Amino acid sequence: MIEKGTLIIISGPSGSGKGTVVERLIDSMAYSLSISATTRRPRDYEKEGVHYFFKSVDEFKNMIENDELLEWAEFCGNYYGTPKEYVMGRLNEGKNVILEIEVLGASQVKEIFPEAVTVFLIPPDKEELKKRLIGRGTEDCETIEKRIKRASEEIELLPNYDYVVINDEVENAVERINCIVKASKFESRRYIEKIKDFK
Amino acid sequence: MIEKGTLIIISGPSGSGKGTVVERLIDSMAYSLSISATTRRPRDYEKEGVHYFFKSVDEFKNMIENDELLEWAEFCGNYYGTPKEYVMGRLNEGKNVILEIEVLGASQVKEIFPEAVTVFLIPPDKEELKKRLIGRGTEDCETIEKRIKRASEEIELLPNYDYVVINDEVENAVERINCIVKASKFESRRYIEKIKDFK
Repeated sequence: MIEKGTLIIISGPSGSGKGTVVERLIDSMAYSLSISATTRRPRDYEKEGVHYFFKSVDEFKNMIENDELLEWAEFCGNYYGTPKEYVMGRLNEGKNVILEIEVLGASQVKEIFPEAVTVFLIPPDKEELKKRLIGRGTEDCETIEKRIKRASEEIELLPNYDYVVINDEVENAVERINCIVKASKFESRRYIEKIKDFK
Repeated sequence: MIEKGTLIIISGPSGSGKGTVVERLIDSMAYSLSISATTRRPRDYEKEGVHYFFKSVDEFKNMIENDELLEWAEFCGNYYGTPKEYVMGRLNEGKNVILEIEVLGASQVKEIFPEAVTVFLIPPDKEELKKRLIGRGTEDCETIEKRIKRASEEIELLPNYDYVVINDEVENAVERINCIVKASKFESRRYIEKIKDFK
């Protein structure tokens, strides 16, 4: 029997560097990235089943009704969601699956899939957060100030997560997440069946 | 500020090999072993504050009354218990402290010290358990059968623990426990204070 993989939900405010960390985890080959379904149009380079599962509004609404989504949300007139089937398929193959997702979606998934491991990624402190948001060099002061305020608000939600990982260096953050995923395999609830072996 | 250590409670039935695993963890220098208080007489080689804190019955009863013990029990007419002060002192120095303790004591400690990480060590299966208990070669069949029965009963308590570690090889078990302790440092409840840094 293949040991089931772990579903890891990663959230973090803008400036936490979660994009880079998730990329690095995927590159390490020990993880699959969940693929979202969306009703928005594909961009030129985007491939069905690689970047997204592209759906019509009707198809998407059907998926909601048939309970085929782990979570979903509407954003700028388009629907986005996480198809259960893809995630469950990878988990059953023994793959760990990463879901990079906003705070609201994270609690939706945790509710229907309590064995998911939720990780909240944060920058080391406010100064570093500021530096990272300014570092992008693409926005004016006002936008940056707004982002910092929003990030500070989002960080207040960290108690809702199982684990908090400080992203001081990408390598450290990746190592910490690997360790969390490994330890989660030893949670006692995964061993209830094992009791039978001693009867 | 020194980061506080983690209190790790390790239990396991006879035959789980917890003695060897704990010894190996202590040898690795990353852990302190909790020292028990007892009213029994010291054996020749036993040193105060190394093997035990030796107490008179009156002294021990005072410790109980003054709430100075994390847990205690009476066994064969002697008292045994875990002094809070020693454990807290090591944790505040940033040391991880191991408490090797019976199931009943483990739940007592977890109740008053919920941030403790509880680990239940088990042999891979019933056959291996049998082999280990026979392997000691010091007991007759009836005693061994009794032990196996008791161990099987104890294993039913595994859902009470945070983690279950299968002790197939000592090295593996040690590595698993190290990983659990490391991951426990990232539990979100340890980061509540961190929220302030972003205000």
